[in-house]
Amino acid sequence: MRIKIINPNTTQAFTDALQQLADSVARPDTQVLAVSPATGPASIESFYDEALAVPGVLEEVARGEREENIDAYVLACFGDPGLYAARELTDKPVLGIAEAAFHMASMAGACFSVVTTAPRVRFMTEHLVSRYGFNEHCKRIRTTPMRVLDLATSPDTAIAKVIAECRLAMAEDKAEAIVLGCAGMSAHREYIEREIGIPVIDGTVAAVKLCEAMVDMKLGTSKVLTFNWPRPELAAPGKGLKIA
Amino acid sequence: MRIKIINPNTTQAFTDALQQLADSVARPDTQVLAVSPATGPASIESFYDEALAVPGVLEEVARGEREENIDAYVLACFGDPGLYAARELTDKPVLGIAEAAFHMASMAGACFSVVTTAPRVRFMTEHLVSRYGFNEHCKRIRTTPMRVLDLATSPDTAIAKVIAECRLAMAEDKAEAIVLGCAGMSAHREYIEREIGIPVIDGTVAAVKLCEAMVDMKLGTSKVLTFNWPRPELAAPGKGLKIA
Amino acid sequence: MRIKIINPNTTQAFTDALQQLADSVARPDTQVLAVSPATGPASIESFYDEALAVPGVLEEVARGEREENIDAYVLACFGDPGLYAARELTDKPVLGIAEAAFHMASMAGACFSVVTTAPRVRFMTEHLVSRYGFNEHCKRIRTTPMRVLDLATSPDTAIAKVIAECRLAMAEDKAEAIVLGCAGMSAHREYIEREIGIPVIDGTVAAVKLCEAMVDMKLGTSKVLTFNWPRPELAAPGKGLKIA
Amino acid sequence: MRIKIINPNTTQAFTDALQQLADSVARPDTQVLAVSPATGPASIESFYDEALAVPGVLEEVARGEREENIDAYVLACFGDPGLYAARELTDKPVLGIAEAAFHMASMAGACFSVVTTAPRVRFMTEHLVSRYGFNEHCKRIRTTPMRVLDLATSPDTAIAKVIAECRLAMAEDKAEAIVLGCAGMSAHREYIEREIGIPVIDGTVAAVKLCEAMVDMKLGTSKVLTFNWPRPELAAPGKGLKIA
Amino acid sequence: MRIKIINPNTTQAFTDALQQLADSVARPDTQVLAVSPATGPASIESFYDEALAVPGVLEEVARGEREENIDAYVLACFGDPGLYAARELTDKPVLGIAEAAFHMASMAGACFSVVTTAPRVRFMTEHLVSRYGFNEHCKRIRTTPMRVLDLATSPDTAIAKVIAECRLAMAEDKAEAIVLGCAGMSAHREYIEREIGIPVIDGTVAAVKLCEAMVDMKLGTSKVLTFNWPRPELAAPGKGLKIA
Amino acid sequence: MRIKIINPNTTQAFTDALQQLADSVARPDTQVLAVSPATGPASIESFYDEALAVPGVLEEVARGEREENIDAYVLACFGDPGLYAARELTDKPVLGIAEAAFHMASMAGACFSVVTTAPRVRFMTEHLVSRYGFNEHCKRIRTTPMRVLDLATSPDTAIAKVIAECRLAMAEDKAEAIVLGCAGMSAHREYIEREIGIPVIDGTVAAVKLCEAMVDMKLGTSKVLTFNWPRPELAAPGKGLKIA
Repeated sequence: MRIKIINPNTTQAFTDALQQLADSVARPDTQVLAVSPATGPASIESFYDEALAVPGVLEEVARGEREENIDAYVLACFGDPGLYAARELTDKPVLGIAEAAFHMASMAGACFSVVTTAPRVRFMTEHLVSRYGFNEHCKRIRTTPMRVLDLATSPDTAIAKVIAECRLAMAEDKAEAIVLGCAGMSAHREYIEREIGIPVIDGTVAAVKLCEAMVDMKLGTSKVLTFNWPRPELAAPGKGLKIA
Repeated sequence: MRIKIINPNTTQAFTDALQQLADSVARPDTQVLAVSPATGPASIESFYDEALAVPGVLEEVARGEREENIDAYVLACFGDPGLYAARELTDKPVLGIAEAAFHMASMAGACFSVVTTAPRVRFMTEHLVSRYGFNEHCKRIRTTPMRVLDLATSPDTAIAKVIAECRLAMAEDKAEAIVLGCAGMSAHREYIEREIGIPVIDGTVAAVKLCEAMVDMKLGTSKVLTFNWPRPELAAPGKGLKIA
Repeated sequence: MRIKIINPNTTQAFTDALQQLADSVARPDTQVLAVSPATGPASIESFYDEALAVPGVLEEVARGEREENIDAYVLACFGDPGLYAARELTDKPVLGIAEAAFHMASMAGACFSVVTTAPRVRFMTEHLVSRYGFNEHCKRIRTTPMRVLDLATSPDTAIAKVIAECRLAMAEDKAEAIVLGCAGMSAHREYIEREIGIPVIDGTVAAVKLCEAMVDMKLGTSKVLTFNWPRPELAAPGKGLKIA
Repeated sequence: MRIKIINPNTTQAFTDALQQLADSVARPDTQVLAVSPATGPASIESFYDEALAVPGVLEEVARGEREENIDAYVLACFGDPGLYAARELTDKPVLGIAEAAFHMASMAGACFSVVTTAPRVRFMTEHLVSRYGFNEHCKRIRTTPMRVLDLATSPDTAIAKVIAECRLAMAEDKAEAIVLGCAGMSAHREYIEREIGIPVIDGTVAAVKLCEAMVDMKLGTSKVLTFNWPRPELAAPGKGLKIA
Repeated sequence: MRIKIINPNTTQAFTDALQQLADSVARPDTQVLAVSPATGPASIESFYDEALAVPGVLEEVARGEREENIDAYVLACFGDPGLYAARELTDKPVLGIAEAAFHMASMAGACFSVVTTAPRVRFMTEHLVSRYGFNEHCKRIRTTPMRVLDLATSPDTAIAKVIAECRLAMAEDKAEAIVLGCAGMSAHREYIEREIGIPVIDGTVAAVKLCEAMVDMKLGTSKVLTFNWPRPELAAPGKGLKIA
Repeated sequence: MRIKIINPNTTQAFTDALQQLADSVARPDTQVLAVSPATGPASIESFYDEALAVPGVLEEVARGEREENIDAYVLACFGDPGLYAARELTDKPVLGIAEAAFHMASMAGACFSVVTTAPRVRFMTEHLVSRYGFNEHCKRIRTTPMRVLDLATSPDTAIAKVIAECRLAMAEDKAEAIVLGCAGMSAHREYIEREIGIPVIDGTVAAVKLCEAMVDMKLGTSKVLTFNWPRPELAAPGKGLKIA
């Protein structure tokens, strides 16, 4: 099967890391195609950044439908930007990495905390936790005093901060699993898990494996109402989508 | 004061109706500027439509900041598309019409129901009700078998359906106020209210009056964290925003 | 229009302060009439105090209907005592200042905390937050080790404590706006806001401006069921209410 | 032990019925004293009625403390009017009959519905259900087209309506127990239960038995903060309360 | 009346203590029969322990129905193991001690915290709080670094830790009552209450008194659906239950 | 990998059907071992049935750990009996089929309804929906007037009833996906889906695919606290578990 991972920001280093990570966890019969849109923000740390990123995300889904023969889509930014709109463009599964990580974490531990980057995304993450139904499972959103791009420029310092925050999550929140709240941390998941000794869930890995499961189940996106196709004058799936 | 109403769709008839409606309720010292973006969907009835509309909405907020000396913004589509992103572009109040209507309705009646257009928006509206905290006040989202544009093309039939649904809301949900769930119904608010005999709240009217209140209170958007300005490389408020 | 502010306690200094404050924010065409009942508690810091204050509040609403030609009512005590009962006595808007402050705060910041006086009111305030639907927006009720009347007798010390608590709300709760949980703090709102740098909402100001908005909208209290008029044998609106 | 039942309305026929009912369920060593205040509404069917009734309720609690050597108090109106204020006047248990009924019903059946009188009390009852924590246990508030006093003037017709509504609760809500939502129905509890075949809980009975249990447990009202005594200038428990 | 207390673990010292405690609070006309199953875990501190204990609990309920003429049952372990299954085996009341304690605590104080033993039971206790509807009343589950059996082997040290935790509950959670989260603490309830000065609720005491109340009310377990008798091939109440 | 499916009831026809179903969806490199315990109830339709089934379920998990080299466990009864206890016996993934189905359904459609067998399981299913966090996603639990074993004895009639109920879920609840609430329906999933035209999720299929995903992710059960191993005196994993 073919899974397309859409990194909604334009930082190619992150896209490359996602490709490598996904390749390492995908099944032999799964091809992963990690892309990032031509234009958009270099990182996504606010609602405005998300808004800038969404048209590019949708264009990539549309291209996937039109010409790439894709079986499932992963939106690889922890805010799941454009998730519901993307679901209208396809009847294949479309998963956000926050969504995927929360589901998996809730099956691995009695409760979890999210450890993420800049404090600014707390409100956004709280809304996702609430919208997806994890208010009881998720004990706390923990932010660290760093920017997303610090994970690329000074990974050692950044990951040390992440690990310290994970330990606080264990001691103070009694978290029994950790969700990494930023796709930029994905490459360090194993190391963090080894250091802290409880399951650490990366959303991209979770989403790739959930996509494989859904494709095997022939389970896609229900088109009966909410995620029905866009109206013809706006978009013709498989032909040529008109995205503003 | 100057209030800018942004109709996120490109149907000029709706924009004109919003201008007229807002003029009729605004205070003498309030100037209302109703606009719609140059490009975007003709109506907004799904998440995809919203996603197409958001860049235009943000561009209008940015223009307001840059050159129009605006005191407050109203997003005149019942899904409040781009609301949180728009708040990052200004320290003035920015209100969505769903948000404004829910607040006002909860102060006017013990409970309310929403009467809106096509069934497809139910899920979207439920999320807004939940996100803004009105799960107990809002008894039900009632959709009618019509499209948004029916309100423009055959208003009599459309409004008759709306009134019938309002009466069901009173009989079945025991609703004590009605929120109109579509900016296209705004012009008919008074007529509907007279017919059914309980308060009928239109979000655009509510938002304009709440903007006046907030401006008088010198109450804008808190910039301390979540809605802080976009990062300089993405946007320079007052200078020239780079929207994808 | 004519707005009647009812201070449910009998401390005239607070009533005078409310009059002055409201005059400073009301529109030129708005007359504000601040009163306090003839009898009742000197301050309201418990459920029992509230119960003592309610009959006087209702008498003032009844008098407003009977002889004062009032367009809207504000109950200026943060427990909103008698709010729902008062709504039965009139078809005009009746707003509590806790209710008004919560609504306004939720439109100004991503989340808020309440800073109020004596610890004893915490439970009461939590119930209001929950009843009005602000459990997710309101991060915490913060009480200070002081009595309501300390705000009148030693305002400098009292306000310093309030400001310290606001700073804790920012640091610990990540509050993006502050709601002042006591009408006695109203006069100091601007000063506190200047000191802490995020929006500070006073309920009396919020309620006055919301009343103006609702009157302009011709939006009153729905009389269809819950807040219908009292039965004739108990009360004859506009004639002479019999309050025990 | 001595339990005082306070009927907050002034209809002596109801008070007599409560005395008789309580005598029939109280233990031999329990003396029940059913009273109604000297003044107040003849029935309680709205928030305004409640507000009129509260001062009389509090006066009866104060008299109980001052001169009647009471061990526990029951507020025998389904809106639990003045419950929290009454708790400040004593360190003995004070139970509302709605509260008592909900607790007992949740231990008798998997879920329950409330069957009560006039539609107007629905909102009030919903708030009690929510405040006390029974949103999941309570399936629905069912009102009947009758007034409280109909239970006294034409009991046969009234009870037939109640039974019909109970049967709807079983068929439509799948209720496994019924809570009678009005003290005026108490005398008919056994008959209704026999007719419908599932547990029917009357709040007055429930409250009397819970009072006996709490007194045996030496469990009263915690005075540490929220329900602490009124301030001395307002009330001197055991001496003479000043109620407005 | 005859109340059977089932201690789900096999530690006879705890069973004896429960018998003694219950005898000291039961009415003169109440006979208490405290038992523990023949086999099962020595203490219950995890879901697995609970699963081991449930068959023995059910066998004791079945024996009570078959040959002991029991009027009500108490499951004396704070996880309420097998509560809903036990309710299928009888039409008498069956109460768990966590359930009983939460109900009583919510009528005694504005809010409460639970103080219990090993950290491992936190998740289990949170679920009970949530399932029974006490999410708003219960401020926090506080665990102490001890094992259940420490209460038997070194009670002084263990109780000192419990009291310290209760004091933290008062200072940090603002708890106005304490629920003891382990049947092993029951014997020390009075001492703890005297030390900390707010109501301390023991679940076994609460359950015994609630059983007496329910039996007096002729209120048992609704058999209409959820807790209906087991199917004949599995169990014949009053004849001989087949428990695996 | 090796996945063990434990059918908690002793009806071999169901176990065989589960084996066949799982084989048809498992990956080529996955071996599925479907078993049912030696003793236990023939079907599980109440809490009592669940209690009877749990020891057998746990014994099968223990055997899996001891001698069968299992990588993940599926509990194939829609009440997820013994799920949390089973997680203590292993550090591998253990999934209930209700849990698995809810997670998958929430990623496939905007909302779903559950269609299950006898009315008696409604309360049990509601608790699972609530405990796992799906109160907003799950619109309704729909029961059909049938017994679990009807699915084996007269499948045509039974499935016709299920399909009729699914159609009601679409029309009345606006469900966009259906979760089959009984393992006995699994074999008919495809047929039902084809008939009704929206995604139909079977929990066993969902759980098998989620297990494969979790094993690939090296994600098991967090042993840090809640699901830590049983105490040595009760159980020695890998050696010989003592189950009552």
